[in-house]
Amino acid sequence: MTHSRTQSTFQSPIVETKGWLDGIDHPADRPLMLVSQAAPVAPPPPELRRAIADLILTDDETHLYGPVLGLPGLRSALAAQIAGLYGGPVRGAQVAITSGCNQAFAAAIDALTNQGDEIILPTPWYFNHKMWLDMAGVRAVPLPVQADMVPDPDQAAALITDRTRAIVLVTPNNPTGAEYPADLVRAFYELAKSRGLKLLVDETYRDFDSRTGAAHDLFTDPDWADTLLHLYSFSKAYRLTGHRVGALLTSEALMPEVEKFLDTVTICPAQIGQHAALWGIRNLQDWLAGERAEILARRAAIHDGFPVLADQGWKLAGLGAYFAYVEHPFDMPSDHLARQMLRDASVLALPGTMFTPSGDAAGQRHLRIAFANLDRAGIATLFQRLSGLRY
Amino acid sequence: MTHSRTQSTFQSPIVETKGWLDGIDHPADRPLMLVSQAAPVAPPPPELRRAIADLILTDDETHLYGPVLGLPGLRSALAAQIAGLYGGPVRGAQVAITSGCNQAFAAAIDALTNQGDEIILPTPWYFNHKMWLDMAGVRAVPLPVQADMVPDPDQAAALITDRTRAIVLVTPNNPTGAEYPADLVRAFYELAKSRGLKLLVDETYRDFDSRTGAAHDLFTDPDWADTLLHLYSFSKAYRLTGHRVGALLTSEALMPEVEKFLDTVTICPAQIGQHAALWGIRNLQDWLAGERAEILARRAAIHDGFPVLADQGWKLAGLGAYFAYVEHPFDMPSDHLARQMLRDASVLALPGTMFTPSGDAAGQRHLRIAFANLDRAGIATLFQRLSGLRY
Repeated sequence: MTHSRTQSTFQSPIVETKGWLDGIDHPADRPLMLVSQAAPVAPPPPELRRAIADLILTDDETHLYGPVLGLPGLRSALAAQIAGLYGGPVRGAQVAITSGCNQAFAAAIDALTNQGDEIILPTPWYFNHKMWLDMAGVRAVPLPVQADMVPDPDQAAALITDRTRAIVLVTPNNPTGAEYPADLVRAFYELAKSRGLKLLVDETYRDFDSRTGAAHDLFTDPDWADTLLHLYSFSKAYRLTGHRVGALLTSEALMPEVEKFLDTVTICPAQIGQHAALWGIRNLQDWLAGERAEILARRAAIHDGFPVLADQGWKLAGLGAYFAYVEHPFDMPSDHLARQMLRDASVLALPGTMFTPSGDAAGQRHLRIAFANLDRAGIATLFQRLSGLRY
Repeated sequence: MTHSRTQSTFQSPIVETKGWLDGIDHPADRPLMLVSQAAPVAPPPPELRRAIADLILTDDETHLYGPVLGLPGLRSALAAQIAGLYGGPVRGAQVAITSGCNQAFAAAIDALTNQGDEIILPTPWYFNHKMWLDMAGVRAVPLPVQADMVPDPDQAAALITDRTRAIVLVTPNNPTGAEYPADLVRAFYELAKSRGLKLLVDETYRDFDSRTGAAHDLFTDPDWADTLLHLYSFSKAYRLTGHRVGALLTSEALMPEVEKFLDTVTICPAQIGQHAALWGIRNLQDWLAGERAEILARRAAIHDGFPVLADQGWKLAGLGAYFAYVEHPFDMPSDHLARQMLRDASVLALPGTMFTPSGDAAGQRHLRIAFANLDRAGIATLFQRLSGLRY
């Protein structure tokens, strides 16, 4: 077989690690703890389920093709929500609904780049971003984060070439949890704008940001759409991962390009998921505030409980939204450690090597812990298991 | 803005023609007839709707991420159905469920090709196939069909170069309706196999084929998966266009490559659509037989009613499944004619130019009529309107 686009990238870490589980038995008193995938494990609230079940029965349109760019009502509702949250002008025509946030990224990249172009991607990166860039024939130019887990705009500026098309930020970050300060996001925006580049800001985890108020002020620039592409997911907020619904905000000028991609790859987003998202925007804001409070309480439990791991030489490198990014104390690369931990502690976490370029020393020292599904007792158990490891 | 992947292709014809409708009023006694998009306009049967509404309420898993390659039960059920229909060995592990059949094509192409490769694509082509090849940086090598609307394997053989990776067939064909004879499909298969190429066979419309029994014998080759990639859609059979569920069959060796694409672009197919498709396979075969009979009756009405158009110089170039492909008698390219017909006859059909390379003379002479949603009376009205046109 010839070398193909998919062969130019690696297997999905989520798929790969599922394979690790095969053939490993865990003691009855030490059941498997999955802190590998960042996804709710509980369904959406019953009221939402009843609302979409009713549409399935009564609304013929939910079974038929809808507009490529999504339901106009959902596009407008998200635009209004973002305008309210961020204090700037956003129109429904600047919103595309996508089949999940990964697809929003893929659509944005194909609308902006061609073979041989470059995208500046802070490391550690979100692996599906790197995978799409590989498949798209776009060079991901790594921008290693600083010790505080945030990237430096000056360092980014030095990486810009005549092939650079965009800079990507993920905040709150996957995998580190870092919440990028508003002035840092603004500095990246100004850099992109001044150099004629686009800035992609993936805010999949924005609903679980520990800060109150707008996370950045980019939308207050009346011309934001000339520079900013904003990515969002409804999956985490309303527990809709199985329905595939995300969003991409950009200029009306770029929207027909995004539309070509979405039409060709999926024709339209699944209708029922869009209705679920719209119902969530309209009815679940108080519920979502409760979800956020719970995630923040778990985050606090990670922080408060960490000394038991710190005593064994572990360090808490990043913490926020769904993720803790931890530095382990062992003389072993993280991908080896992750498999060893699965056998010895029945804990599956993703190694930093899955978020970094091949051979990256920082990646070998870190693990990502997706803690959102662990309650306070679960976090205590996790730390107890990890603190007992000796290699 | 730099030249991007999406800029290397055209806007979706479905999107473009929706724009044509703006600002045109139709007389009260001549309402708009849409024969442009190939999709059911009615919802699935009530029993299916009740079944999936019940899952929404009771099955938590329908709201959460599922496997990248789809629900194992659906993969197995489709494998068994295809094994039964085509009389050959098919395993669930050879089936990927996709977010619609367009995505199956995109995944197949990215798993097989890289920048600068070539794919042999009979013309007229399905426009989304051409669009994805453009975006993927793959050259679509046109293989014009013969007068009977089927392509010639010898002519295809002459187009093979060292960059050729695959040949694509769509049968029953979109846009011509042509049902490719089994021995012709076999001849293409032997050609691909002998030259180390893949053969992609898109059978989106297979449930409406007028022939009984297997449409081809490719699956009877125990090694079919080394050469054949089979594409299918559940959307037309069970009226699930709004749920986005299709399938790609290929070898277990290629499946991890397909999985990389699907994981990165959508993570998993929407769960509820997969359950709907599975329910359809299990419970709607008799119902589907009735749907097929109705489509065949409409097809017969097109055939029987055509003399009224033939008298005005129109020709029926192709007929089958959802589509009639007609040659118009006017000294006007089909894209001009289509817009003129919309004003003068309140009929929206897609011009052959949307299915052919720029400047293609055959494309300028043809129109695609998606007749599946027209009953016998509707077909009579359509022909009456068209037969009155004079340019």
